[in-house]
Amino acid sequence: MDKSIIDYISQYIKLSENEKEIITKQNFIKQYKKNDILLSEGKIANDCYFVIQGCVRAYHIKYGEERNTDFFFENQTITPISYQTKQPSQYYLCCLENCVIAVGNEERNQKLLEQIPNLSLLISKMNENLLIQKTVEFDDFKNHNPEERYLLLLKNRPEFLNRIPLYHLATYLGITQISLSRIRNRISEKNA
Amino acid sequence: MDKSIIDYISQYIKLSENEKEIITKQNFIKQYKKNDILLSEGKIANDCYFVIQGCVRAYHIKYGEERNTDFFFENQTITPISYQTKQPSQYYLCCLENCVIAVGNEERNQKLLEQIPNLSLLISKMNENLLIQKTVEFDDFKNHNPEERYLLLLKNRPEFLNRIPLYHLATYLGITQISLSRIRNRISEKNA
Repeated sequence: MDKSIIDYISQYIKLSENEKEIITKQNFIKQYKKNDILLSEGKIANDCYFVIQGCVRAYHIKYGEERNTDFFFENQTITPISYQTKQPSQYYLCCLENCVIAVGNEERNQKLLEQIPNLSLLISKMNENLLIQKTVEFDDFKNHNPEERYLLLLKNRPEFLNRIPLYHLATYLGITQISLSRIRNRISEKNA
Repeated sequence: MDKSIIDYISQYIKLSENEKEIITKQNFIKQYKKNDILLSEGKIANDCYFVIQGCVRAYHIKYGEERNTDFFFENQTITPISYQTKQPSQYYLCCLENCVIAVGNEERNQKLLEQIPNLSLLISKMNENLLIQKTVEFDDFKNHNPEERYLLLLKNRPEFLNRIPLYHLATYLGITQISLSRIRNRISEKNA
């Protein structure tokens, strides 16, 4: 199970056999059931995550309605804003599927960093990549209408369409489920 | 002029007198006129920036219309996505006011990092903070209607309203200038 973490880290930095062993010996893998909540609005996040298997959904509650802001799949890290700021979380993290997740916390991460100082380089590169991704996604969201957003998703994140129920996808795209159905019908008519 | 850079860096890491001198000796400060273009769509960015004075506007062109996606003021860094990815830029960077800007490039940054290795910690913390900011702004944009977005801006980024013309602010908020005027009228009637 830890192999995917080793593979992920090895994309960014070279790990010695000894370092791989240190990571493999960490006992930080947990199983979660579909609908398990990892973080609630108003709570301070003490944990950060790496998805080994499954999908985690981030959502805000607005006017009593769940609004999805992100989905995390295999080989993605989840560092809640609240984990970094130590302020109460503005959003929930919830398992959309049964999940296998590596869970870190500050004490454990600090110890790991002492044993493998190079990991700080990994974190830095990871944050750089996440910043690029977030900026591009935000710009795309602003500069496209809902139909274009859907087509972009189809092109860039096809796993979203295969694994996320339409009602969750709709709020992620900032539209109602009826609008999303119309968009999908329009596109399939065009392609017919 | 370099004092603001030293102050900015000192928020994140401790600089020795010698290191401050190395930074002060860098000759990377340039003056730009209002409307000068720092980066064009389709070009690869070789430079990154730190705004000492003035304001820089980021915009995409969509259906022949400029759509603002970000504004950078004093003490903000600008690292174009294209600088990081080496892919052609999707957007323009343009001076909204006369500007004084510190300009970095990879060769210069590399040399500085060799002289002051601690700067890598600065970059890492900076990216972490920018990632938090971008994520919060994106979530806010998705979860609020235009009037709420305007009120959030009024609260969180009052400099936006003081220094950015309304027609630029409107596209940043994802609305027309007429809608923005209506929102402003509604708010001032409420407060009257």
